[in-house]
Amino acid sequence: MNLLREVSEQDATKIGQELLRFAEELYPICRSITGDGIRRTLAKIQDRIPLRICEIPTGTPVFDWTVPKEWNIRDAYIKAPGGRRVVDFLKCNLHVLNYSTPVHATLPLSELKPHLFTIPEQPDLIPYRTSYYNDEWGFCLSHNQMLALEDGDYEVCIDSTLEDGHLTYGECYLAGRSSDEVLISCHACHPSLANDNLSGLAVATFLAQLLSGRDLRYSYRFLFIPGTIGAITWLARNRETAARIRHGLVLTCIGDKGGFHYKKSRRGNTDIDRVAAHVLRHSGESAEILEFSPYGYDERQYCSPGFNLPVGCLMRSVWGSFPEYHTSADNLDFIRPSQLAGSLFVCAAILDTLENNRWYRSESPYCEPQLGRRNLYWSAGGETSGEEEIMARLWVLNLSDGNHSLLDIAERSGILFSTISEAADLLWQKGLLSIIPDPGQGTPAGGTSREGNSQLRKGTPSVSTARSDLLSSGDGRE
Amino acid sequence: MNLLREVSEQDATKIGQELLRFAEELYPICRSITGDGIRRTLAKIQDRIPLRICEIPTGTPVFDWTVPKEWNIRDAYIKAPGGRRVVDFLKCNLHVLNYSTPVHATLPLSELKPHLFTIPEQPDLIPYRTSYYNDEWGFCLSHNQMLALEDGDYEVCIDSTLEDGHLTYGECYLAGRSSDEVLISCHACHPSLANDNLSGLAVATFLAQLLSGRDLRYSYRFLFIPGTIGAITWLARNRETAARIRHGLVLTCIGDKGGFHYKKSRRGNTDIDRVAAHVLRHSGESAEILEFSPYGYDERQYCSPGFNLPVGCLMRSVWGSFPEYHTSADNLDFIRPSQLAGSLFVCAAILDTLENNRWYRSESPYCEPQLGRRNLYWSAGGETSGEEEIMARLWVLNLSDGNHSLLDIAERSGILFSTISEAADLLWQKGLLSIIPDPGQGTPAGGTSREGNSQLRKGTPSVSTARSDLLSSGDGRE
Amino acid sequence: MNLLREVSEQDATKIGQELLRFAEELYPICRSITGDGIRRTLAKIQDRIPLRICEIPTGTPVFDWTVPKEWNIRDAYIKAPGGRRVVDFLKCNLHVLNYSTPVHATLPLSELKPHLFTIPEQPDLIPYRTSYYNDEWGFCLSHNQMLALEDGDYEVCIDSTLEDGHLTYGECYLAGRSSDEVLISCHACHPSLANDNLSGLAVATFLAQLLSGRDLRYSYRFLFIPGTIGAITWLARNRETAARIRHGLVLTCIGDKGGFHYKKSRRGNTDIDRVAAHVLRHSGESAEILEFSPYGYDERQYCSPGFNLPVGCLMRSVWGSFPEYHTSADNLDFIRPSQLAGSLFVCAAILDTLENNRWYRSESPYCEPQLGRRNLYWSAGGETSGEEEIMARLWVLNLSDGNHSLLDIAERSGILFSTISEAADLLWQKGLLSIIPDPGQGTPAGGTSREGNSQLRKGTPSVSTARSDLLSSGDGRE
Repeated sequence: MNLLREVSEQDATKIGQELLRFAEELYPICRSITGDGIRRTLAKIQDRIPLRICEIPTGTPVFDWTVPKEWNIRDAYIKAPGGRRVVDFLKCNLHVLNYSTPVHATLPLSELKPHLFTIPEQPDLIPYRTSYYNDEWGFCLSHNQMLALEDGDYEVCIDSTLEDGHLTYGECYLAGRSSDEVLISCHACHPSLANDNLSGLAVATFLAQLLSGRDLRYSYRFLFIPGTIGAITWLARNRETAARIRHGLVLTCIGDKGGFHYKKSRRGNTDIDRVAAHVLRHSGESAEILEFSPYGYDERQYCSPGFNLPVGCLMRSVWGSFPEYHTSADNLDFIRPSQLAGSLFVCAAILDTLENNRWYRSESPYCEPQLGRRNLYWSAGGETSGEEEIMARLWVLNLSDGNHSLLDIAERSGILFSTISEAADLLWQKGLLSIIPDPGQGTPAGGTSREGNSQLRKGTPSVSTARSDLLSSGDGRE
Repeated sequence: MNLLREVSEQDATKIGQELLRFAEELYPICRSITGDGIRRTLAKIQDRIPLRICEIPTGTPVFDWTVPKEWNIRDAYIKAPGGRRVVDFLKCNLHVLNYSTPVHATLPLSELKPHLFTIPEQPDLIPYRTSYYNDEWGFCLSHNQMLALEDGDYEVCIDSTLEDGHLTYGECYLAGRSSDEVLISCHACHPSLANDNLSGLAVATFLAQLLSGRDLRYSYRFLFIPGTIGAITWLARNRETAARIRHGLVLTCIGDKGGFHYKKSRRGNTDIDRVAAHVLRHSGESAEILEFSPYGYDERQYCSPGFNLPVGCLMRSVWGSFPEYHTSADNLDFIRPSQLAGSLFVCAAILDTLENNRWYRSESPYCEPQLGRRNLYWSAGGETSGEEEIMARLWVLNLSDGNHSLLDIAERSGILFSTISEAADLLWQKGLLSIIPDPGQGTPAGGTSREGNSQLRKGTPSVSTARSDLLSSGDGRE
Repeated sequence: MNLLREVSEQDATKIGQELLRFAEELYPICRSITGDGIRRTLAKIQDRIPLRICEIPTGTPVFDWTVPKEWNIRDAYIKAPGGRRVVDFLKCNLHVLNYSTPVHATLPLSELKPHLFTIPEQPDLIPYRTSYYNDEWGFCLSHNQMLALEDGDYEVCIDSTLEDGHLTYGECYLAGRSSDEVLISCHACHPSLANDNLSGLAVATFLAQLLSGRDLRYSYRFLFIPGTIGAITWLARNRETAARIRHGLVLTCIGDKGGFHYKKSRRGNTDIDRVAAHVLRHSGESAEILEFSPYGYDERQYCSPGFNLPVGCLMRSVWGSFPEYHTSADNLDFIRPSQLAGSLFVCAAILDTLENNRWYRSESPYCEPQLGRRNLYWSAGGETSGEEEIMARLWVLNLSDGNHSLLDIAERSGILFSTISEAADLLWQKGLLSIIPDPGQGTPAGGTSREGNSQLRKGTPSVSTARSDLLSSGDGRE
């Protein structure tokens, strides 16, 4: 598999623009951890990739948690004494405290103020705030907007419902030759936030598209889930499947102009950690490797001690470290086509590396084989191969002793994995290497995709392949 | 246990002054490796803490060594040709070569000179020199003093005795719930040297006072011993006890104005090494960690290959590295109240960490438990807990998998041990953690202090709880 | 054994000049991977050390390779249209493409040019080029020489033969008390190149001379072989012997003015790697340690995965990194007596360390033994031993617990190995240490040299102890 080469042959600018266009489609939807916002988002993803949409009833126990009520909202506003909508959910869905209980009342400014959230240090930005698991209502607005409010009685309305219903998530399973899985997970519960939500959704969707229909070594599972409670729910219902995850990535905040950050899995030295570090080191972009910490995105759940899965988190700017984080400034201008495309390319290179990381054994372990007579070496009159190609062959032959994977060889030699992998393939074709089983492989490479699918079906009680009937049509009105 | 908090709530200035005052009390005594000087010192320590004083007869074989003769001295001087005392032991006990054989004679300056020791590079300072295990007599004086001596006949007198007697040391045993022990050792054989001797004696004495009467996890053993021969004697007579030492510290040179130095145990990665490094890293003072070497103080004996005990050495300035070392300038002005107090605080923090370093297992290992509903997380309207407190809880929950102690968690998270320990205690109270046995613990936690005491009694032939009868009363006259 | 001390007591300048003189003797010979050039070279080495010369017939299969035809050359030239020899092999044997097929023809300049090799970037230097395993003829000359050639017909003559014969190498075996071996290998197949060939040959020959007739712990095997095919041939015929190699060094490019480079073995942490690093660190010369890579000299074959021998490569400037590399500028002016001598000294120190790296156990493991009464410590009036000598004794006593070799102790203490080794010897003489078996030793120390020799005889079909009959006498004419 060489996803990166294929995707690189396309026009990066065009791919970036398509990724941005998909983010634009999703941007106006008012998502939350439950409700029609996330359903509508998943439906748009389903237009592009085969997505099973799973609905888990309110009240279902999931480990230490319980699936919460479903939240839906139609409208919300604050009307000034003169009757004008001074804060209007229909203009920006960040204006409502996400998961607010319904309210319809008229109150003086002094009583309204405890329900207003602003950022005094960034007086022009609307904050993103939530009240999950609390009975609370409120509005978010810019600090300057709040300062402009005059004394008087205000009509406040949050036309929301918090009722028994479902938690909804989407799952795209692409069967490979092995039932061992690669997990790609991203959260889909933030309303109009572009980097912190839509960048990951767009890149993951495009990655799944790229993989679709290919002959895959691993099976791939893409999860589009509400943060925290979604990952907990999925893990609670899929413990057997989770045990098959060999490598995983949480994707988030990968559209901004910053360099890459890869946060290592709890174990810290798994293949995904090493592959991500290798790919980023050779990516030509600035990149930093971060140690695991039990804070962040859903890697927190995948890396909880009972699961301890080999799942890292790929970001550009780190959540909380950029001023636009969780504000109205994390909008469509904040993410860039070139950065989205670059993130897709890095993900493709990571998956290529996982797919192609094999174990070989040299058929000629005693001294070097004679590469010259096989036309794999320098020629007398100059070079038939580039220097790095020849070095890659020598490294592969030298280290293919049953104790080194191609990734080990790439790391030790300092040569790009794809060069090492191509050298190994050529040497294998020439009969100088044989393929040996991957010692870390849990299940045999012959594991079929069928098993994977039946497991998925077992673990997923309510499956809908077309949920667009549940969704209303107007932007900003669900 | 939280010694540090208690001691920190007191007035650091006052504690420092008390430590200095105790050093002042001990300063005039002319100590040596045997004799009444060390006896009188131990008696003053015994005024403050329960101290058993052990007397081992001259000639007792102790491993490769033999307990030497007992040295006592009443007076020593050099009288100039005119009869004036130009060098007078009663003015400064460094003037006599420590452990000198007796002498009373009149000799010309030329014959006297081979018996005079000075430091030409520091012409105003009196050196500290010893002649243990050699039959020799001599005087130490400033180089300028020596240069001023005129030709003529000098009367020299060293009124000392070197006779069969005892080697004396003091031992303070504080029984804890476990018979596993923490050792605190300091040498008590140097005469009027403040940093290199008295600083360690004072801090160790105050530490023992702080621990007295507390409910302790470990049993504590404080040794006040003559350097080298004392440690060898104690180890030779207490091999079974030595096997119970889980952590140990040699305290020396901890009153000067320098930053801390911690010299690691021979093993280099024991808990005491890690705890000392952790506490010093967070102490706010400059601190350097030194590798083990087989030179220095009594850690040389505790870390000899047959014992290889987990014993490090805590210092401020390192012996030999400061110009005042082993000279009359290592006097009471050289040690400072604030530095003595700071050293006591660091020791208290080290002991707190050892006492509180436990192993827990998460009762909720699959995904995070829901901290919010237990009021252990951010609240919607702001924060109910500080950020570090919450991070500490998440780290403890994530790493409490049976493979990590609280110290491991503090090291990996970079969070202060006490914050981690408090988080663990809170989570344990909320039922989210259970306590598991410490895998490194040699003896069960139920080991009683009684065993420890009986062992001590067995290993200690001659015990006196009040030896002041043996001591004369005048300063500088023993 | 203390080779270094002995050699250091001689006049370094004189040794360097002798090494250079030997290189001068060998310089004019036109060596190649087979033929009389290497035979004549080996004969000159045989004048100095006991050398077995091995002849392996053309066509013999050696692993993936086949012993090639034997190449010999008498003359080669290009005659300009006027009849003048413009390129003359008799003036410089680099002028002929090494291993050229014979040719005698007259051709126009345009047809000659594809057979001419120059270095445009270094227009005054003649390149060194080879055509092993290709049927090709050609000449090497300076770029300026080539530019000066005028149009016209040129007579070219390469009076060479490529016929069935033998591959020749030399082997010097010095039997020690153990049949475990130390390998010193250098290539002997380059024509008039001083640093890249002769420096290694000269130093290896002198090392073998130094070792001859000594009581040796290890047996030593010096190989003087054609690069690549020689090492492959030797390994193919000596697999049992190869299994006895405990330490090995490839010597090359060790006469130029550069600092040392030691390239580690494939394993990277073997004794030879550690010893070379230790010796170089203390050598007082600039030195760099390089990681293994599967390119370079015959360490490539010794470190192929089937053998994976503990063999590193000692160089001064690294092949390919200096502008004189593989040109006529790598001549006798490029190597220097002082550098050759310095390389010999470093090799001697490495062998001393290997010979003297023993395992001891302290007879006094509980506390320090009393060094003072054995006169092994500071005296009262000053020092009976230097500080480093005393520290070395303390380190040896502290770490001689059955888990540390003297090399381990030298590394941990930072003290020069020879100081550690002398301390251990002294302590052993005083009865404070006993010698214990080296845990890494494959064969018992009682293994005799006889076994080693019979193995060598078995593995070496055709042995000549005096091959000078095969060699013609004129320089540059073989």
